[in-house]
Amino acid sequence: MLFAVTMDVAIPPAMDPGEKATLIDRERSYSRELQASGEWLHIWRRVGRYSNLSIFDVSGNERLHQILWNLPLFPYMTIEITPLATHPSDIRVA
Amino acid sequence: MLFAVTMDVAIPPAMDPGEKATLIDRERSYSRELQASGEWLHIWRRVGRYSNLSIFDVSGNERLHQILWNLPLFPYMTIEITPLATHPSDIRVA
Amino acid sequence: MLFAVTMDVAIPPAMDPGEKATLIDRERSYSRELQASGEWLHIWRRVGRYSNLSIFDVSGNERLHQILWNLPLFPYMTIEITPLATHPSDIRVA
Amino acid sequence: MLFAVTMDVAIPPAMDPGEKATLIDRERSYSRELQASGEWLHIWRRVGRYSNLSIFDVSGNERLHQILWNLPLFPYMTIEITPLATHPSDIRVA
Amino acid sequence: MLFAVTMDVAIPPAMDPGEKATLIDRERSYSRELQASGEWLHIWRRVGRYSNLSIFDVSGNERLHQILWNLPLFPYMTIEITPLATHPSDIRVA
Amino acid sequence: MLFAVTMDVAIPPAMDPGEKATLIDRERSYSRELQASGEWLHIWRRVGRYSNLSIFDVSGNERLHQILWNLPLFPYMTIEITPLATHPSDIRVA
Amino acid sequence: MLFAVTMDVAIPPAMDPGEKATLIDRERSYSRELQASGEWLHIWRRVGRYSNLSIFDVSGNERLHQILWNLPLFPYMTIEITPLATHPSDIRVA
Amino acid sequence: MLFAVTMDVAIPPAMDPGEKATLIDRERSYSRELQASGEWLHIWRRVGRYSNLSIFDVSGNERLHQILWNLPLFPYMTIEITPLATHPSDIRVA
Amino acid sequence: MLFAVTMDVAIPPAMDPGEKATLIDRERSYSRELQASGEWLHIWRRVGRYSNLSIFDVSGNERLHQILWNLPLFPYMTIEITPLATHPSDIRVA
Amino acid sequence: MLFAVTMDVAIPPAMDPGEKATLIDRERSYSRELQASGEWLHIWRRVGRYSNLSIFDVSGNERLHQILWNLPLFPYMTIEITPLATHPSDIRVA
Repeated sequence: MLFAVTMDVAIPPAMDPGEKATLIDRERSYSRELQASGEWLHIWRRVGRYSNLSIFDVSGNERLHQILWNLPLFPYMTIEITPLATHPSDIRVA
Repeated sequence: MLFAVTMDVAIPPAMDPGEKATLIDRERSYSRELQASGEWLHIWRRVGRYSNLSIFDVSGNERLHQILWNLPLFPYMTIEITPLATHPSDIRVA
Repeated sequence: MLFAVTMDVAIPPAMDPGEKATLIDRERSYSRELQASGEWLHIWRRVGRYSNLSIFDVSGNERLHQILWNLPLFPYMTIEITPLATHPSDIRVA
Repeated sequence: MLFAVTMDVAIPPAMDPGEKATLIDRERSYSRELQASGEWLHIWRRVGRYSNLSIFDVSGNERLHQILWNLPLFPYMTIEITPLATHPSDIRVA
Repeated sequence: MLFAVTMDVAIPPAMDPGEKATLIDRERSYSRELQASGEWLHIWRRVGRYSNLSIFDVSGNERLHQILWNLPLFPYMTIEITPLATHPSDIRVA
Repeated sequence: MLFAVTMDVAIPPAMDPGEKATLIDRERSYSRELQASGEWLHIWRRVGRYSNLSIFDVSGNERLHQILWNLPLFPYMTIEITPLATHPSDIRVA
Repeated sequence: MLFAVTMDVAIPPAMDPGEKATLIDRERSYSRELQASGEWLHIWRRVGRYSNLSIFDVSGNERLHQILWNLPLFPYMTIEITPLATHPSDIRVA
Repeated sequence: MLFAVTMDVAIPPAMDPGEKATLIDRERSYSRELQASGEWLHIWRRVGRYSNLSIFDVSGNERLHQILWNLPLFPYMTIEITPLATHPSDIRVA
Repeated sequence: MLFAVTMDVAIPPAMDPGEKATLIDRERSYSRELQASGEWLHIWRRVGRYSNLSIFDVSGNERLHQILWNLPLFPYMTIEITPLATHPSDIRVA
Repeated sequence: MLFAVTMDVAIPPAMDPGEKATLIDRERSYSRELQASGEWLHIWRRVGRYSNLSIFDVSGNERLHQILWNLPLFPYMTIEITPLATHPSDIRVA
């Protein structure tokens, strides 16, 4: 089941640089594991913003929430979710 | 070069049903040709809305505008565009 | 899988009264069948508005879109969707 | 009398972890007591957000305010309230 | 139980003047009856707008919805509702 | 001359509890004096929010500003003002 | 007593040109009379918009509403009102 | 050339009272000099807000920016600018 | 003096195609004359929208309003204006 | 390929003045180098705001993101991007 998710990141300027670097490393590893397992289908940078647009392919709402809630950067993110369905014009399903 | 594009459709309720059906057919063919040619990478329905989220892979801004401006449903659409770039966490580019 | 859905209805004032009555009857029957089948879990009127707040329990995004897209009043509705998950404070799951 | 209530939580990142854990525990107990007494009818997590959608069944506005004002997390919440009424399509009241 | 209600009116310019006059007369009578019965506590014009701010004192949500839904101008109104409770600084309850 | 005024309060979480209690006491006394003198006609709590809806009956804009500017909680408030006039449906003036 | 008022005008494109010209003439005369009498202190065009910013000096809310409600273009206007008071930096009152 | 300018002020609550008083004094002197020279035509308090509505009569955009950028309170202000032109209904220019 | 101006165009779908073509021709000629004379410095299409971003270099607010008000498509446009000034980082003025 | 970019700057008031001056110097040098190389085509101050409107001429989305992400003031900026294309009325391309 597909969901489009945008994540805007706002790390407090006062955060210790070491702590920040560790956090971003953990975020990267976390994302890559889920990409490797096939649940985090796409991740793109939104140009000019500390933000990404991602596509998730998960078993349902419970799993999507579990993934997002455990993002290392979750406390610093504003997240928006769009449930997706098959489009009748999609050549892969026509 | 990638762009995320949302297209919200609002066809006037008073449109002649035959005209509407023709228009939607033309839109579908137009979309499928661009999917087949590789420029219209993804198209998903946004659940519960007459709207889609699409990903385009085009040569640049001029080509993206040309594609969107010529959509048969363009006069009835509200379109939003997000330029995308490679994300440093993307396992396909790491 | 649960979703909260709000549906705001705006029927054009110029619609023929008979057509309007038929449409509303069809909407009502459609809703009741889905309530009876267990997929449309709750429907509440939002006070002072031609609008409802509903809770759906469906197999996933595809099914939710199919239900909403086929609402007789769909062309006259503005719909917002919130995917829901279990809350850790819920006594029914604790 | 039914009300839909959304509660968005924003705990300051600088809060002491122990204080935060205590606060969340108190919030959980408070919520469960009101669920057990029948006034807090439903609580769902809004996916990807530190937020819930709840349905309250209370004697009126005064009681609803009393419940919300005394939430341990109230100082960190943004709350929106929608008064609900019976929907004419609801099969339980038809 | 008190509610603050704002009603913004937008009558289509094309409405027949006689029909419009009748509608406004019916709205006035309807409002005055509810003021006389004590449920429609206050009605003020919002300066420079075709809009009012009203205070209702009703038995609950169901009754408030019944009153608003049956306003002769309801199809032409945008309504916002704010549930009210006693304020601790109010000298009448202190 | 009547004005509807909403006051949303946001006291910084870091404020000293004693200072906060003093401030709220001063606010309460200030409000009650103006209620007693007849200029602060109504004050209601907006349910679920640290906010009130008030009705003022003052000599004009200058006096209203003087009252609001001197509220002990003014530095922590977001205030919105709606000038009111007699409504033609009001039974007290018809 | 001073008020800043913005008036955005949206005349339906389908209005008969003669009717439109008459309406605009009446609006102009109405405005000029109130300027001559001293109640409509200033009127400026907002650049690039069918809109004005005006300053009124009136006896109070009731009079301001009466003036605005009787504008020939009132049914086609969106109006916003800001009550004004003396500023402590104003050299004319210091 | 005329411009309407609104300035909303938000001084951090933590600012030292002496520093704040000095800043406000400097702002006042600065404003009065420009009023005396004829460039700052009007300044009004917006009722119930730490905000003003001002009218400037300046040689152009460069001069307006120079004036605003050098306001002692500029770092604490949110400013909105509306370019103004002569209105055809203005009796002073008719 | 420079201004950035965005113009969003919304021609009613019901407009006669011949009338629409004439209008767009007139708009084009009008724009080109002002580009040739040096007042309409730049015009760019905003991708995916019936909209442009333009830069004007005019003698002041009065002239800018005169140009925009006389655009053949003005009745179908939503226009936003940003006054511009020299930026201290601009290498052409440093 | 052209992009319009607005950058709103909000430097925390508490930043050390020396650090702030260094940051602004680095921003200026960075901007001037890109102006000299031809990628940063225009930069204008938005009047009355700590903000600029810029036009970039870059090879594509990846390059634009690289430029913006490395702005010394990036952590303190809110950035909006509008992809631009040739306008059919532009006399330079007609």
